[in-house]
Amino acid sequence: MSVVVVGSVALDSVKTPFGERANALGGSAVYFSYSASFFSDIKLVGVVGRDFPTPHLDLLRRRKINLDGLQVADGETFRWSGFYEYDLNEAKTLDTRLNVFEKFSPNLPDAYRNADCVFLANIDPDLQIRVLRQVRRPKLIAADTMNLWISTKKESLKALCREIDILVLNDGEARQLSGKASLIQAGRLIQSWGPKFVVVKKGEHGVLLFSKKNVFAAPAYPLEEVFDPTGAGDTFAGGFIGYLNKKGNRLDENTLHQALFYGTVMASFTVEKFSLERLLTVRPPDIKRRLTVLHRMSRPSTL
Amino acid sequence: MSVVVVGSVALDSVKTPFGERANALGGSAVYFSYSASFFSDIKLVGVVGRDFPTPHLDLLRRRKINLDGLQVADGETFRWSGFYEYDLNEAKTLDTRLNVFEKFSPNLPDAYRNADCVFLANIDPDLQIRVLRQVRRPKLIAADTMNLWISTKKESLKALCREIDILVLNDGEARQLSGKASLIQAGRLIQSWGPKFVVVKKGEHGVLLFSKKNVFAAPAYPLEEVFDPTGAGDTFAGGFIGYLNKKGNRLDENTLHQALFYGTVMASFTVEKFSLERLLTVRPPDIKRRLTVLHRMSRPSTL
Repeated sequence: MSVVVVGSVALDSVKTPFGERANALGGSAVYFSYSASFFSDIKLVGVVGRDFPTPHLDLLRRRKINLDGLQVADGETFRWSGFYEYDLNEAKTLDTRLNVFEKFSPNLPDAYRNADCVFLANIDPDLQIRVLRQVRRPKLIAADTMNLWISTKKESLKALCREIDILVLNDGEARQLSGKASLIQAGRLIQSWGPKFVVVKKGEHGVLLFSKKNVFAAPAYPLEEVFDPTGAGDTFAGGFIGYLNKKGNRLDENTLHQALFYGTVMASFTVEKFSLERLLTVRPPDIKRRLTVLHRMSRPSTL
Repeated sequence: MSVVVVGSVALDSVKTPFGERANALGGSAVYFSYSASFFSDIKLVGVVGRDFPTPHLDLLRRRKINLDGLQVADGETFRWSGFYEYDLNEAKTLDTRLNVFEKFSPNLPDAYRNADCVFLANIDPDLQIRVLRQVRRPKLIAADTMNLWISTKKESLKALCREIDILVLNDGEARQLSGKASLIQAGRLIQSWGPKFVVVKKGEHGVLLFSKKNVFAAPAYPLEEVFDPTGAGDTFAGGFIGYLNKKGNRLDENTLHQALFYGTVMASFTVEKFSLERLLTVRPPDIKRRLTVLHRMSRPSTL
């Protein structure tokens, strides 16, 4: 079982009410991979510049994440800088420098093309589709997206929707993409465009998963304080997809529901410190412990 | 087992994007009572004016709600008018006329004073305390409140907190009362002021319940459309407290958690039409059906 993920590998500069970091390891493919590596074998597709610090790569290799698909291009690594205000619900972007990402054309190593699961993290939907064309009959295809592509490449995104099993997006994006204020209507409508399942991430309010007929929910892990929400969504997706892959890409509702809880637990670590700082100290028993809390939190044990 | 509830009995004029009603039956004690009457015997304390339509009273009596504690005073019934915009999350008040409520002094009939459960719906906390002084050793005391009392009578509210088992309030009120942006911190802080449990209502995002050590969650019922949210919070409290009372006022975490689900189901009916229009057609099997959906929605059945 293995997951191919394509997405950004970035150097993030982030400021929150609790402190700041410059040029810290980040990017959707990085958060996803690190989180998913607790459940499955991960193969990463992306690009960095010649300036990318080697220790960051070591840190991914230590989790046995395969980096054969990570191109190193002339130029600088993708950089994002932004900040959060006290409510921490919305990242305000100060600057995005695509750098080597601008001319990125994903090209999968041969060993990647037989992966049974593909996660298309948030990048241009045309690139997401280009990656899909390079894999042979994966059993599970999931994708994430963002407001930028919803406003600039909606048709590509809808084309992508017809080819994937699961779309993961946040509540604001679900409302924007569907044009519906009701999240229940939004999830159902997007689901009708193709994905068998739609996952709507709601930050402190947890997640919803829409199947053809049903809706499933998981609350957020009850942290007293969120330190830095950067990467929470990608870390969630890593736990969610990694767990599904570990379970043989089963998409029955019980497995999917359990996967929501794993994703939620992984995201709860990421937001406790900057960058991957907290994830680096996570051990499997920590995951188990938080999973138990989340289960008890969600339904009376006598049912 | 019986619940004494004190709160408003009102004539509401409401406008939503879907229509409007003038002088419809409303008020916190009314929504609470009607909802709780599916689980327990209800005794209502409140006041109406001579203008209050008799059919409204018949409708409550048909649910065997005891109205001996409902005073009829000279003057007009309490009136609230307001509207909701498309997001339906916040009621905008156009006009509040206290009328007979202005001089209301709750006075409990003798038969009410031995009730084993008291719900102090949203009224002036000084009146809530006055009601408490008139009951003999109830096993369960719960209260609701609103932003008005948090800004004008915070000390009375904190005094009330020391005498109750459960405080029910919405997310905005919890943040306002605690001064904390994090709902987890807010719930824990308020809980430390006295109530054994704090319930935070989050509208479309469901509810959280805080005990001394744990947090419990229930998602909102997945309605495609919310028609009119007026009374949802009081209907929730009715199902929640009514169920606890039915279970002998047990406050173990499993019973409380189950009660969250019952409250959520009852509220899901109220928001489907104006006033009590939808609640009037609810039968016990409807409640059971939605409860099953909510259970399945909340946790994988294989756990």
